[in-house]
Amino acid sequence: MMLEPGATIGILGGGQLGRMLAVAASRLGLMAHVFDPDPLAPAGQIAHLTTAGYDDLAALRAFAASVDAITYEFENIPTTALDALEATRAIHPNRRALATSQDRITEKDFLRGLGLQTAPYAAVNSLADLEAALVQIGAPAILKTTRLGYDGKGQARIMSAAEAPAAWAMMQGAPAVLEGFVTFTHEVSVIAARGQDGAVACYDPGENVHQAGILRTTTVPARLSAGQRTDAVLIAARILNALDYVGVMGVELFVTAQGLIVNEIAPRVHNSGHWTQNGCAVDQFEQHIRAVAGWPLGDGGRHSDVVMENLIGDDMARLPAIRQERNAAIHLYGKAAVRAGRKMGHVNRVVTAARS
Amino acid sequence: MMLEPGATIGILGGGQLGRMLAVAASRLGLMAHVFDPDPLAPAGQIAHLTTAGYDDLAALRAFAASVDAITYEFENIPTTALDALEATRAIHPNRRALATSQDRITEKDFLRGLGLQTAPYAAVNSLADLEAALVQIGAPAILKTTRLGYDGKGQARIMSAAEAPAAWAMMQGAPAVLEGFVTFTHEVSVIAARGQDGAVACYDPGENVHQAGILRTTTVPARLSAGQRTDAVLIAARILNALDYVGVMGVELFVTAQGLIVNEIAPRVHNSGHWTQNGCAVDQFEQHIRAVAGWPLGDGGRHSDVVMENLIGDDMARLPAIRQERNAAIHLYGKAAVRAGRKMGHVNRVVTAARS
Repeated sequence: MMLEPGATIGILGGGQLGRMLAVAASRLGLMAHVFDPDPLAPAGQIAHLTTAGYDDLAALRAFAASVDAITYEFENIPTTALDALEATRAIHPNRRALATSQDRITEKDFLRGLGLQTAPYAAVNSLADLEAALVQIGAPAILKTTRLGYDGKGQARIMSAAEAPAAWAMMQGAPAVLEGFVTFTHEVSVIAARGQDGAVACYDPGENVHQAGILRTTTVPARLSAGQRTDAVLIAARILNALDYVGVMGVELFVTAQGLIVNEIAPRVHNSGHWTQNGCAVDQFEQHIRAVAGWPLGDGGRHSDVVMENLIGDDMARLPAIRQERNAAIHLYGKAAVRAGRKMGHVNRVVTAARS
Repeated sequence: MMLEPGATIGILGGGQLGRMLAVAASRLGLMAHVFDPDPLAPAGQIAHLTTAGYDDLAALRAFAASVDAITYEFENIPTTALDALEATRAIHPNRRALATSQDRITEKDFLRGLGLQTAPYAAVNSLADLEAALVQIGAPAILKTTRLGYDGKGQARIMSAAEAPAAWAMMQGAPAVLEGFVTFTHEVSVIAARGQDGAVACYDPGENVHQAGILRTTTVPARLSAGQRTDAVLIAARILNALDYVGVMGVELFVTAQGLIVNEIAPRVHNSGHWTQNGCAVDQFEQHIRAVAGWPLGDGGRHSDVVMENLIGDDMARLPAIRQERNAAIHLYGKAAVRAGRKMGHVNRVVTAARS
């Protein structure tokens, strides 16, 4: 089904990703209708906003009835909400992609099933499980709840077996997974898109630097050999095809001496793809909307080198200096309250010289 | 005065230009509040819209009180409306720029006063004036009302002196100007910006093709020698500086054997600058908002070659084919009703090969 101009895209979640998706929809002549429990959701400044909880099935049904297709900016959507929506309207990316990425063990089983490399992992549902897993995988390792946390929440590093009880206690009884550490030189991500016609288009891989579990910068092009670059794109394409995926996905990869190891996948537009706004003719947000609307994918070729820097919390104090930079494209999210760790915006520094 | 994130830009006019200005404001973390008599104004889909007439002084005053700075997407704003607004808030570009461009004779006098070339012209307030002007300037020539028409309205071509009475009748008694034809090889335009600090930045000139008085395509780079390119930019800078201008201006130039001749200036973002959305890190809309908000200008360097094509009226029937093009960045304006001659959207075809 191809949506025509004037049709409405429903977006679950009105944070910065929902906001930038809504802008992309408007650029294509589509309307955006955003659903978010927060009346101050940033996307509400530029799109119609329904303010209701994800447990408000009546509001969800009214929302579904008012839109022509549904997508989302985050993957922790309750199953009951998805059931209520999907009774009326198609959801892209699909339920299988959501279910796969919502559970770390399901995700890793899926990736291994495709013949891809992941970090060593083991399910942990008790302290005894954890102790056995530590023998198998070794320390240091990291214990995580299997259901998604966000930006490093719900995780415990284990440096030695003696720390197992404290780490297990932090899980508060939730099902968990122990992941072995991977020795990697750097992390890259591939922002990949797949259309309803099955066509796949990948953006050039970006190189990511995190700090305290939050993405700080993405640099494009990433440090990769030609062979690694090809591998990265093929891995992403294999994942999207296996899920019969529609939309944009972020695929995080560790670069190691043993090849590329899949860290995690996110079934949505991704912070590490923000560079595409100033590096490509069609950015990740517009590509995602094109896919959700049933349009053919657009041109994701890279015309410029870009370094994307997140503006987090007090980074906003540097805004006056950043405004003075000639090559800095500024993207702010319309959030009034600055809080530590809160993503307030980002800057794309275009580092390629202009043509003459 | 530099506006900080969360401040509001007031925009007079909610057509496609106002809509794209509102999107650019949101990208910079600014709010947009649009004023337009039409409740279906396209910008209303993505920004707060006040629906009232330009003769509604109470609505204008309330609008001015609710915003931090005011700009506009069109130059035919009534003087009484400007008076009501300017009593409360700064308007950029300034009144002098508006007054100059609202009257063809004032504009040409101003340009000549700067030492720039224009087509030959003479004021016409009667049939006798017209006949005298035709002797002076010769035919063919074109008679226009001095106050602005739009896209070729309010104009009469005169191929010989015998057509003078009919042409004068078409002016319906309004003050007019007779303009001589200029022999030119092609038309280019410079999209120029000036910040509140007096800095000027010009985008690369684009080459324009019109049809029936409406812009069809802009191609960048334009066919210009290095010397002509320099001249074009210097002409634009001279105009902006002379007006103490703040914001983006479109300067249309004829390329002739006798040098560059200024056709007309538009004190606003310009259709012939739409290519910047996919050719530059900071496009004309964002550059305009930066200037109006008191920010330093951003990077207008061109990273790609672009051909911009307007989608006018029935051109929308070609949308399915355009969607299939890999290098076509599509921009639609959210207008429901397709009418002959109505600008529905545009396509930026990025013709530079991607980097690898």
